[in-house]
Amino acid sequence: MQAVTSLFTGSSGPQYLTGNKADIDAFIDKFDVFLFDCDGVLWSGDHLFPNVPETIQMLRDKGKQLVFVTNNSTKSRADYKKKFDSMGISANEEEVFGSSYSAAVYISRILKLEPPKNKVFVLGESGVEQELESEKVPYCGGTDPLLRREMMPEDYKHVADGSLLDDDVAIVLTGLDYHPSYLKYALGMAYLRRGAKFLATNIDSTLPSAGTLFPGAGAISAPLLRASAQEPLALGKPSQAMMDAIEGKFQFDRKQACMIGDRLNTDIQFGIEGGLGGTLCVLTGVSKKEEFLAKGAKVVPSAYVDALGDLLG
Amino acid sequence: MQAVTSLFTGSSGPQYLTGNKADIDAFIDKFDVFLFDCDGVLWSGDHLFPNVPETIQMLRDKGKQLVFVTNNSTKSRADYKKKFDSMGISANEEEVFGSSYSAAVYISRILKLEPPKNKVFVLGESGVEQELESEKVPYCGGTDPLLRREMMPEDYKHVADGSLLDDDVAIVLTGLDYHPSYLKYALGMAYLRRGAKFLATNIDSTLPSAGTLFPGAGAISAPLLRASAQEPLALGKPSQAMMDAIEGKFQFDRKQACMIGDRLNTDIQFGIEGGLGGTLCVLTGVSKKEEFLAKGAKVVPSAYVDALGDLLG
Repeated sequence: MQAVTSLFTGSSGPQYLTGNKADIDAFIDKFDVFLFDCDGVLWSGDHLFPNVPETIQMLRDKGKQLVFVTNNSTKSRADYKKKFDSMGISANEEEVFGSSYSAAVYISRILKLEPPKNKVFVLGESGVEQELESEKVPYCGGTDPLLRREMMPEDYKHVADGSLLDDDVAIVLTGLDYHPSYLKYALGMAYLRRGAKFLATNIDSTLPSAGTLFPGAGAISAPLLRASAQEPLALGKPSQAMMDAIEGKFQFDRKQACMIGDRLNTDIQFGIEGGLGGTLCVLTGVSKKEEFLAKGAKVVPSAYVDALGDLLG
Repeated sequence: MQAVTSLFTGSSGPQYLTGNKADIDAFIDKFDVFLFDCDGVLWSGDHLFPNVPETIQMLRDKGKQLVFVTNNSTKSRADYKKKFDSMGISANEEEVFGSSYSAAVYISRILKLEPPKNKVFVLGESGVEQELESEKVPYCGGTDPLLRREMMPEDYKHVADGSLLDDDVAIVLTGLDYHPSYLKYALGMAYLRRGAKFLATNIDSTLPSAGTLFPGAGAISAPLLRASAQEPLALGKPSQAMMDAIEGKFQFDRKQACMIGDRLNTDIQFGIEGGLGGTLCVLTGVSKKEEFLAKGAKVVPSAYVDALGDLLG
């Protein structure tokens, strides 16, 4: 990995591309495939960054293969397709690879638990549920409105004696749940104590929106980690389980691929650990250039731009 | 500290008192003051352990000073008095020292922030609110039903631009909140990012009830730790800030005091680090004797009994 990144970073650190048309063209020409993070790269919440649709189109016109790799677990691939449409960015559902889909694929194709003891207790939103359905994995929890209620005194007994638990649950899968409740956490903890496998769509601590940071999936699922003293296997970036699944689906040469993202410890680390030919950091999201330009920085991209639209030159 | 515990543990480990009347009497005679944990010692949830009222009365008859030291942040001292009454245990409000009270005292008497910039954003239940009121500390959040609602799209902007925040908040105080919501976590995170001090009534990961374990205050507050990348100052056991406050209020000789509890890493550690004359572990709660009898065990009580009622002999 060190050898790969040093090809581009050399001893002078990452290459700054903004405003340098020749360097931008040379950089783009190196790759056949671009993996994109979405939040913080294409948009922030509902705010589209300048020239993004045009940049995506430019890459398509050059014949590049594009994959949109997102840790956002609340949206399914179908939800994402709608978001791309509303933003005026050309993309199709098959190009989207989300952490919920990654988790569903891992459960259905890697774990392959024997029915009926293969049910998933979900701490998360409909994006997780839709992707589990697409892989025909049974689940409970999730958006079930009955679990958003208050914990009642008798619930303690019914969790303790197991009567409130589903005997078929073998996996606890946490994503970002916008409707946390004590009851959900108590049930998730009980399943984990009973031996359920612990998976997470992703463990991002924060979620960028409206120009600031909000609690991410890793924050909202933290009660389960703390209460169970267990760590989940994360199926989102920077987990290489996700990279393997992406490569398996899209079949490309990693050396000809570049990961574009805004987070060093998620996107850029994901690309470097995956042995991709390059990584490009955009400064419209979480990480600041001071972090990777600092002496001794651990995660350093091949190149960086102020914003994705700068690639238009 | 090592010297203190070795007085009682010697090379043969902690003393097992159950069934040995002479050893029990000798142990009790060593102390003037007994600090009691409540959950897991006197009761589990709503289940009173056998002979507890009689044991408490026996200690009172011997002229011992009793202090009930609890990390449970959901109840105020007044709430606890009611619980003692309903359980038939003689106790008065002044003998109860809870982590909510400990936090309120720390805020009002140690931090002493200048009004009006001294407001506390509470993640917790009415026990925290009542104790803040008793110390005349202003607060928001807590049981406010408006914060139990769903996060709406416009909330992201209003958190980001500060219009949903209270400018007077200078402290975030987390306890056990049975009504967590994404909005509460987002607000707490925003206050912390703005520089609010981070306090916790306690950071117990689990809460024993109905013979099993449920998420504790440390679990429910974990999203704030993870999202802010900050650690709170905990004012409950085993924090010595709580021991200092107890000693300040009750004025006793630590060498003549014994801590009785069910958790090694909370109660027993609290007593050992506080330099108390002794610690007594009861096996009706979280910790198992195998944990402190194991070779190399880090936290070892002076003595242990199967249940508190065994002290009746």
